[in-house]
Amino acid sequence: MSKFFSSKYKNLTPYTPGEQPKEREYIKLNTNESPFPPSPLAIKMANQESEKVYLYSDPNSTVLTNTVAEYYGVKPEQVIMTNGSDEVLNFAFMAYCDNQNKAVFADITYGFYKVFAEINNVPYKEIPLKDDFSLDIDAFIKEDGTLFIANPNAPTGICLSLLEIEKIVSSNTQRIVVIDEAYIDFGGQSAVKLVDKYDNLLVTQTFSKSRSMAGARLGFGIANAKLIFDLVNIKYSLNPYNVNRMTSGAGIGAIKDDKYFKDNINKIIQNREYTVCELEKLGFTVIDSKANFVFVKSDKISGKDLYLKLKEMGILVRHFEKPRIKDFNRITIGDKNQMVSLINQIKNIIGE
Amino acid sequence: MSKFFSSKYKNLTPYTPGEQPKEREYIKLNTNESPFPPSPLAIKMANQESEKVYLYSDPNSTVLTNTVAEYYGVKPEQVIMTNGSDEVLNFAFMAYCDNQNKAVFADITYGFYKVFAEINNVPYKEIPLKDDFSLDIDAFIKEDGTLFIANPNAPTGICLSLLEIEKIVSSNTQRIVVIDEAYIDFGGQSAVKLVDKYDNLLVTQTFSKSRSMAGARLGFGIANAKLIFDLVNIKYSLNPYNVNRMTSGAGIGAIKDDKYFKDNINKIIQNREYTVCELEKLGFTVIDSKANFVFVKSDKISGKDLYLKLKEMGILVRHFEKPRIKDFNRITIGDKNQMVSLINQIKNIIGE
Repeated sequence: MSKFFSSKYKNLTPYTPGEQPKEREYIKLNTNESPFPPSPLAIKMANQESEKVYLYSDPNSTVLTNTVAEYYGVKPEQVIMTNGSDEVLNFAFMAYCDNQNKAVFADITYGFYKVFAEINNVPYKEIPLKDDFSLDIDAFIKEDGTLFIANPNAPTGICLSLLEIEKIVSSNTQRIVVIDEAYIDFGGQSAVKLVDKYDNLLVTQTFSKSRSMAGARLGFGIANAKLIFDLVNIKYSLNPYNVNRMTSGAGIGAIKDDKYFKDNINKIIQNREYTVCELEKLGFTVIDSKANFVFVKSDKISGKDLYLKLKEMGILVRHFEKPRIKDFNRITIGDKNQMVSLINQIKNIIGE
Repeated sequence: MSKFFSSKYKNLTPYTPGEQPKEREYIKLNTNESPFPPSPLAIKMANQESEKVYLYSDPNSTVLTNTVAEYYGVKPEQVIMTNGSDEVLNFAFMAYCDNQNKAVFADITYGFYKVFAEINNVPYKEIPLKDDFSLDIDAFIKEDGTLFIANPNAPTGICLSLLEIEKIVSSNTQRIVVIDEAYIDFGGQSAVKLVDKYDNLLVTQTFSKSRSMAGARLGFGIANAKLIFDLVNIKYSLNPYNVNRMTSGAGIGAIKDDKYFKDNINKIIQNREYTVCELEKLGFTVIDSKANFVFVKSDKISGKDLYLKLKEMGILVRHFEKPRIKDFNRITIGDKNQMVSLINQIKNIIGE
């Protein structure tokens, strides 16, 4: 850090992304990417744009926004497209958190919420998950402030029902509730259908997981048009051309190729069921997941040791040092071959 | 704006990008884009990445960063790559401006500096350009705070010499000076060669103009490694995967194809000379420009009328309503045919 760095960030701890090692080829089950390439239509539409990048992208991402709006059954003015869903989440921290409105999120959830609170210098409160890692709905309802809820939650994979989400959103319509649905397509019920009923609800999603576009960086928010107007004002005050032409093209293609999208989701769900079943046979505790990952622990080996041994064998999973979850590993659901390799290596490790 | 929008932004006025009209085909000389497509190598390398976007981009943009560092003769740890240069500029406002360090910039300059100050809630001061639109170097030197200087300046095109830049940077090494070199490749001297000498200097550049990649969104900062470390910390606290795979590939290709880059710059400079010469023959006042645009006014027609008449005729230029410059128009230098059309239409308009 330089001597010039503003003292307002003196306690800042940046986010730590999952490892992206370059020294060897791993089976990468550590960053919740899709094992499938993007839709051929997404690739084609991205490539059609690359030769046009000498011209600015449309700051309104009009065609992409319309395509997303139509797909989700909302109006274009209820949609904002961003450079990954991290960007729309940060916009929400900027727009809806301040000294009067603290950010509220679970103690075990997407690690970036805390970083967003710190970088924006807003107060925050972490609500402990219950002992079974489920969200303490009543505790959230009682809190003042702006609520950030990942649904399904990460790294647990536990998903609230739409009724539970509505209970939280409707409990106090004078505060914003952000539902981060990065993993919703793998088995959860989206809260998008509630945005016309509640003007205090913002739903965020990403193309990184279910649409195989993590490296293209595309996310979005859906809400009442007034909330989207706030977020668009933030965008136009930071980076009006935030979504580049190639990513915008890929996003349109990904939405239009709905069969490819749904087929891939079904494969992931099948592979998840296979993985859960095999791990349970090996005596693992497996948290019920509606995401493209499972959160698991074994009595036979510590979380850290399993992570390290799998890494030695060429399989990367994600281990967190946080005391409450240090016995667990988060394992991304890849393709069938990857999951078979994983199970075989785990059998080798625990000696079955 | 919603009732939930944080009161800290109550005075926020977002940036207004140049028009991107869709209703007809214009000769677009209003947003300083390149008239030339990106390098064929940039297109090829972008397209090679599109099928890989199911995997996250490298958060360090290692290959791209190394390529840029080598090209500019600095170490990789002296470079940060960003989603357009607007992003690195905002990071600089975040890192180096606060209640103790106001932002200082010219009254007539890139309009986003003021917006960055407002969105970050930091105090700022605008220093009037001199009557001839040149930067008041002595006034900048006397100011406390973090200096933001576009060189060449926009929308004037006036460029400071490297000696003048060094005079400012060295005048007070206890404060940061940001030199925004979005247009430096069209005839100015870059301050990159000063970054090893001054640890208070940050130079920002973009691939949007001279490298024909406005719609790909790629910019960068070069400085002492400690300053880059600050900015990387900000990046990892907002959007670690800020640069997507396709743009990263295009950027590597654009740097490697140096002949294409230099040929295009030479063409723009020739077309600028042609345009200046023709406009001066028509009695225009033309500010001496080292950028890919010219800032011009005529005694025969108001700035606004010229803008409107050209628009009617299918040519878009940029007019600003700010009182001090409302007589002028900023005209992007396009290809030769575009500039011949411009001159012919201006002749029609002013009746020569």
